[in-house]
Amino acid sequence: MKERILVIGAVAAGTKAAAKMKRENSEADVVIVTKDQDISYAGCGLPYFIGSLIEDRKELVVKTPGDFKAVTGVDVWIMHEATKINPQEKTANIKSLITEEEKLFYYDKLVIATGASPFVPPIQGKDLEGVYTLRTIADAVSIRESVDQGSVKKAVIVGGGFIGLEVAENLRERDIEVSVVELAPHILPPFDEEMALYAQNYMQEMGVNIFTEEKVTALEDCKGKVCRVITDQREIEADLVVLSVGVRPNVSLAREAGIEVGSTGAIKVDKSMKTSVPDIYAIGDCAETLHLVTGRPAWIPMGSTANKMGRVAAVNLMDTGKEILPGVLGTTIVKLFKLNAGKTGLSERDAKKAGYPVITAIVPANDRAHYYPGYREIITKLIVDQETHKILGAQVIGEGVVDKPIDILATAISFGAKVEDIEKLDLAYAPPFSMAMASTIVAANVVVNKLKGKLESISPIELKNRLESVQVVDTRDEGSYTIGTIPGAINIPGGELKFRARELNPDKEIVLVCKIGKNAYLSYLTLKGLGFKKVKILDGGVRVYPFELE
Amino acid sequence: MKERILVIGAVAAGTKAAAKMKRENSEADVVIVTKDQDISYAGCGLPYFIGSLIEDRKELVVKTPGDFKAVTGVDVWIMHEATKINPQEKTANIKSLITEEEKLFYYDKLVIATGASPFVPPIQGKDLEGVYTLRTIADAVSIRESVDQGSVKKAVIVGGGFIGLEVAENLRERDIEVSVVELAPHILPPFDEEMALYAQNYMQEMGVNIFTEEKVTALEDCKGKVCRVITDQREIEADLVVLSVGVRPNVSLAREAGIEVGSTGAIKVDKSMKTSVPDIYAIGDCAETLHLVTGRPAWIPMGSTANKMGRVAAVNLMDTGKEILPGVLGTTIVKLFKLNAGKTGLSERDAKKAGYPVITAIVPANDRAHYYPGYREIITKLIVDQETHKILGAQVIGEGVVDKPIDILATAISFGAKVEDIEKLDLAYAPPFSMAMASTIVAANVVVNKLKGKLESISPIELKNRLESVQVVDTRDEGSYTIGTIPGAINIPGGELKFRARELNPDKEIVLVCKIGKNAYLSYLTLKGLGFKKVKILDGGVRVYPFELE
Ligand SMILES: Cc1cc2nc3c(=O)[nH]c(=O)nc-3n(C[C@H](O)[C@H](O)[C@H](O)COP(=O)(O)OP(=O)(O)OC[C@H]3O[C@@H](n4cnc5c(N)ncnc54)[C@H](O)[C@@H]3O)c2cc1C
Ligand SMILES: Cc1cc2nc3c(=O)[nH]c(=O)nc-3n(C[C@H](O)[C@H](O)[C@H](O)COP(=O)(O)OP(=O)(O)OC[C@H]3O[C@@H](n4cnc5c(N)ncnc54)[C@H](O)[C@@H]3O)c2cc1C
Ligand SMILES: CC(C)(COP(=O)(O)OP(=O)(O)OC[C@H]1O[C@@H](n2cnc3c(N)ncnc32)[C@H](O)[C@@H]1OP(=O)(O)O)[C@@H](O)C(=O)NCCC(=O)NCCS
Ligand SMILES: CC(C)(COP(=O)(O)OP(=O)(O)OC[C@H]1O[C@@H](n2cnc3c(N)ncnc32)[C@H](O)[C@@H]1OP(=O)(O)O)[C@@H](O)C(=O)NCCC(=O)NCCS
Ligand SMILES: [Ca+2]
Ligand SMILES: [Ca+2]
Repeated sequence: MKERILVIGAVAAGTKAAAKMKRENSEADVVIVTKDQDISYAGCGLPYFIGSLIEDRKELVVKTPGDFKAVTGVDVWIMHEATKINPQEKTANIKSLITEEEKLFYYDKLVIATGASPFVPPIQGKDLEGVYTLRTIADAVSIRESVDQGSVKKAVIVGGGFIGLEVAENLRERDIEVSVVELAPHILPPFDEEMALYAQNYMQEMGVNIFTEEKVTALEDCKGKVCRVITDQREIEADLVVLSVGVRPNVSLAREAGIEVGSTGAIKVDKSMKTSVPDIYAIGDCAETLHLVTGRPAWIPMGSTANKMGRVAAVNLMDTGKEILPGVLGTTIVKLFKLNAGKTGLSERDAKKAGYPVITAIVPANDRAHYYPGYREIITKLIVDQETHKILGAQVIGEGVVDKPIDILATAISFGAKVEDIEKLDLAYAPPFSMAMASTIVAANVVVNKLKGKLESISPIELKNRLESVQVVDTRDEGSYTIGTIPGAINIPGGELKFRARELNPDKEIVLVCKIGKNAYLSYLTLKGLGFKKVKILDGGVRVYPFELE
Repeated sequence: MKERILVIGAVAAGTKAAAKMKRENSEADVVIVTKDQDISYAGCGLPYFIGSLIEDRKELVVKTPGDFKAVTGVDVWIMHEATKINPQEKTANIKSLITEEEKLFYYDKLVIATGASPFVPPIQGKDLEGVYTLRTIADAVSIRESVDQGSVKKAVIVGGGFIGLEVAENLRERDIEVSVVELAPHILPPFDEEMALYAQNYMQEMGVNIFTEEKVTALEDCKGKVCRVITDQREIEADLVVLSVGVRPNVSLAREAGIEVGSTGAIKVDKSMKTSVPDIYAIGDCAETLHLVTGRPAWIPMGSTANKMGRVAAVNLMDTGKEILPGVLGTTIVKLFKLNAGKTGLSERDAKKAGYPVITAIVPANDRAHYYPGYREIITKLIVDQETHKILGAQVIGEGVVDKPIDILATAISFGAKVEDIEKLDLAYAPPFSMAMASTIVAANVVVNKLKGKLESISPIELKNRLESVQVVDTRDEGSYTIGTIPGAINIPGGELKFRARELNPDKEIVLVCKIGKNAYLSYLTLKGLGFKKVKILDGGVRVYPFELE
C-alpha cells in the first residue's frame, strides 16, 4: 500500500517538505493541510507589499494550491484546520473551516509545520479597528488597504525588532509619520548595544520616532477605532498600530498529543527532525534546533531554516537517505532604508552570558576600493573567544554591502574558524567588489592585535560610562575635533603626539580617539613607544560612538 | 645597533611589509626603494582610470612617498633601482635613476618585492607608438592621454584575460571600437569553457569584437605609429594596441644572487615568506605560494595576496611573532560592464588535470528573492571531488551578486568543506539580500543529488559534441521552444511528458532541456518513474548553453 503522509502547515517548511517528499518518492501519498487560504507565500516579503515596492499580492505567492499540486503532485487542502493529533491511532482530526465538518485522517507519517504566530500582548484596546499584527498575506492586505485609502497619517509600531522596523521603513516610505515603541533599551534587541544604537540613530535621521525602554500600556478607543497609543511615558497619536513584539511557536496541537516541547518552548526534534513520538516530525518555526556555537537548543524562527528543515525531514520521512540539520547560527539580516544590518553567531552579550571569555573589535572599513565610485563604509564587530580564538559571532552594519561579510563569517563559524584563519582567507578582490585587504580581514587583524597584546581598546559603551575617569585624546585634526568630539576630549593631532605627549598625565588612563580607530592605533603605538602604560583606543572611533558628541 | 631592513619594490607587497615592520618595531630602520616614481598605488584601478570612472591620477595613489614616510616612518627612495644583491656581504647595489650613481646598501634583512612585469610577445611592431602594456600609473596615463586627445577610434587588446577585458570595457565605455584577440579557445582562460563562453557572448553583445584561437603575428607600422594588427587569420585596424598577454615575475635580481626560483618561475618561499637564502624574504607578485586545494606550488599574482604576504613577512622579519600564509585558492573576480564573473579553487579542467575524480553542476538561480525588485540571475558552477565530496572549486557568473557566493565558497574550501556542508549553511536571508534557499545552497543540492545518483546530467560542452547521438527534449512551453532551442530538439512540455513519453525511444539517450535545469530535473524524475533508463538533463538549461540555438 502507498504510504500516506500528512503535513500540517503550508507556508515554507510544510511545502518544502511535501514537494521534496514527492521528488524522493513519487508513489507516496502526500497531503498538506492549512487553515489559511494561502500557501507557499513569502512572509518575508509582506513589509514590502505594505510599502508598495511589491505591487501585487500575487507576487508574494510562490505557488498557488493548484500550481503546487500540478508541479509536485501534493494534495492541498486549504481552509482545513488540524484540531487534534492521535498518535496511538495514527490519525488527525481535520476540520473544514468552510463546512465546519471534521474528518479523521489516517496517516503513516505526520509532519507538523504549524509555524509561529505573532504574540499579542494582553493590553487594553488590542482588538480595536486599526490594530494589526503582520504574519499572513491577509494581514498585509488589510494594512495596505488602510494605507491606500489615505486615512493613515500616523502609525505606531509596537516592537523594534526586524519585522517592526521593516514595517516602519515601509510606512515611512508611504509618507506616514511613524513611531516605534520598544521595551528593551534599544531597537534590534539581538544586536549588541552600540551596533543597535547606530541603527537607531540612523532610523531617527530617516524620520522615524523611536522610544525605547518604554512600555505600551493601552490603545485608546475612539469610536471603535484606535486613535492613541498609551505608554508608561507618553501618549502617541495613531490611526494605525502594528503589534510586532515577537512570535510564539504553534505547539499546542503537538503538546496535547503528548509530543515533547523543548526548553525553548518550541517542539523538540533531533537533527533529523523527528519528534519524541514515532513517525511524527516537526519542522520550521514550530520546531527548535541547536545553536552551532553553544551546542544548546535554540529557537530562531527563520524562513531560511524552515526550508532547510523541510528538505532534511523529507529525505528522512521517505527513507531515501539520511539527512541532518546540525543547527543554526541565528544568522539574520535586515535592510532599513539604505542601512543594512546583519548578525551571525552570538552577540557579545549572549557570549558573555554563556560564559565565554570574550574579546571583541569594532572596525569600520570600506566595502570597496576607496577610489571606486559608490563605495560605502561598513562597520564590522567580531566576537571572539579569548582562549580558543574561535569566532563566536559577528555583526556588520552600514550602508555598504553587509550580507557578504556576514555570510563569510557564518561560513567560517560553521567550520569552527579561529580569527587567525580569517586573516588569511583568499577572498575575491577587484576594485568594484572589495578592498585588497577585505573589511573582514582587517577586522580580524585588529582582533588578533588585541589577542597578542599589541593593542588595547575600550568599547563606546564602556567609554560613555567611564568618561569621568579617563583622559580622552582626539587625535584627528582640529577641524574634525571642532565639529564634534567625545565630551571632555582634548585635541592632539596624531602627527603632533610625539612632541606634545608631555601634556598627558601618564598615571591616568588615556583613551585615544580618531575617526575609525586606525589612526588612534598608530597613536597608541607612538605613546607606547614613549613609555606610556595606561593607553587604550576607542574601538571604532567617533564613527561608531553612538552617544552625543560635543 | 638598529636593525636595517631594505625593501625592494614599493607598490603593494613592499609598502605593506614596510609599514607593518615599523608598527611591529618602530626602532627598525626600514628603507624601501623603487625604480618607479610612484609608490603605493592601485594597479587594479588602472583600467577605470583609462575609462575616466576614476577622474584623477591622484585617486590611484594610496600614499605618496611623503605621506608614507610621515605615517609609517619608512624611508622611501623613488627612482632607485636595485641592480644586484650580494647575500654574502649582505649588501645590495642601488642605483639612482636620476644621477646614475650606484651605492652599496648594507642590510641586516632584505625583502624582495619586485613584483611582476607585463610579458611582451616578441612580435614585429611591438615598440611602435600607440602600442602599450598596462602595469604602472605612467602606462595608464599614456593610454588615457591618447584617448583623451580623441585620436583613438579603434583599439585592439591582445589577450582576453581579466586585465585585457577590463581595458576593453573601459575603452568601449569611451566609445572606441574594441577588438580582443585571444590565443586560447575562449576569453577568461582560467574559467571553464562554458562559463567563459557565457562571458564571451555577453562581451560581444556589449559591442566588443572577440577573436579567439587567433595569434597576433605582427603590428603594422604607419609612419612610426601602429595602424593595424595582423593575426594568423585577419587584419584589424587599430590606433591603439594594448598588449595584455600576462605578466612574468621579476626574478632576475634574485636568481643572480643565487636565490632559489621555484617550479612556477617565481621566487620560492616557505609559508613565512623566507627565501632559500638566510635573511632574505620575497613577497608579492615575484613570489610563489601554495595552492590550498592541490598543496602544490602556485604563482597567482594578486594584489590581495601581495598585501597578505607583506604583512606575514613583516612579523617574521621583526621577530615579534610567527605568521604564515598557508596558501591561496586563486580567487579572482572581474566586472565586465554589468556582468560579474568570479572563480575560486580549481576549474573543472585543472581539477581533472590534477587527477581528481570530478563531479560538477551548473545552476542558475536568483541572487535575491524573485519578488524583490532588482534581483538578477547568477550561474553557479561547483566542482566537487566525487570520492571525498570536498569542494575543489567554484565559478559564479551573472549580472547579479557574484562576489558573495565566491567568498562563501572560498571560505568553505579553505576549511576543507564537503558539498553537504554547504547545503546546511545558515546564510543571511531577507528578500533584499538573498533567497530563503540561497543560490549557493541550491547549487550544493544539485551536486548532492548527482552524487546520490538521483540525477544525471550532461554539460553544455558535452551536449554540443554529442548532439547527433542523443534525443534532445525541450520541456519548456511551445512559445519558448519556438524562440530558440538546442539544435534538433523536439518539444514536449514538462506537464505533458507523462502522457507523451511513448514518443521517446527508450534505447537512445534522452537529454531533457529546460530554461535553467530545474524543470528538466522534475521531468527527469517523471521519466525515471516511467522506467526510462537512459535519461539526463542539460546542466544549466538553455540559459547556460553557449552555442547557437535554432
Ligand atoms: C513580516 C515578516 C518578515 C519576515 N522576514 C524574514 C526574513 O527576512 N528572513 C527569514 O528567514 N524569515 C523571515 N520571516 C520568517 C518567515 O516568514 C518564517 O520563518 C516562515 O514563514 C516559517 O515558515 P513555517 O512554514 O515554518 O511557518 P508559518 O509561516 O508560520 O506557516 C505555518 C502555517 O501553518 C498553519 N497552521 C498552523 N496551525 C495549523 C493547524 N492546526 N491546522 C492547519 N494549519 C495550521 C498556519 O496557518 C500557517 O499557514 C519573516 C516573517 C514575517 C511575518
Ligand atoms: C590593470 C591591472 C589590474 C589588476 N587587477 C587586480 C585585481 O582586480 N585584483 C587583484 O588582486 N590584483 C589585481 N592586479 C594585480 C595587482 O596590481 C598586483 O598583484 C600587485 O600590484 C602586486 O604588487 P607587488 O608589490 O607584489 O608588485 P608590483 O605591483 O609589480 O610592484 C613591484 C614594484 O617593484 C619595482 N621594482 C621591480 N624591480 C625593481 C628593482 N630591481 N629595483 C627597484 N624597484 C624594482 C617595480 O618597478 C614596481 O614598482 C591588477 C594589476 C593590473 C596591472
Ligand atoms: C518553493 C517551495 C514550494 C518549495 O518547493 P520546491 O519544489 O522544493 O522548490 P523549488 O521550486 O525551488 O525547487 C527546488 C528543487 O529544484 C532543484 N533545482 C533547482 N535548480 C535546479 C537546476 N538548475 N538544475 C537542477 N535542479 C535544480 C533543487 O535541487 C531542488 O530539488 P531537491 O530538493 O530535490 O534537491 C517552498 O519552499 C515554498 O513554498 N516557499 C515559499 C515560502 C517561503 O519559503 N517562505 C519563507 C521565506 S519568505
Ligand atoms: C596601504 C599600504 C600602504 C599599507 O599600509 P598599512 O599601513 O599597512 O595599511 P592601512 O593604512 O590600511 O592600515 C592597516 C593597519 O591599520 C589597522 N587598522 C585598520 N583599521 C583599524 C581600526 N578601525 N582600528 C584599529 N586598527 C585598525 C590594521 O589592523 C592594520 O594594522 P596591522 O597590520 O598592524 O594589524 C599598502 O597596502 C599599499 O600601498 N597599498 C596600495 C597598493 C595596493 O595594495 N595595490 C594592490 C591592489 S590594487
Ligand atoms: Ca581587476
Ligand atoms: Ca526580514
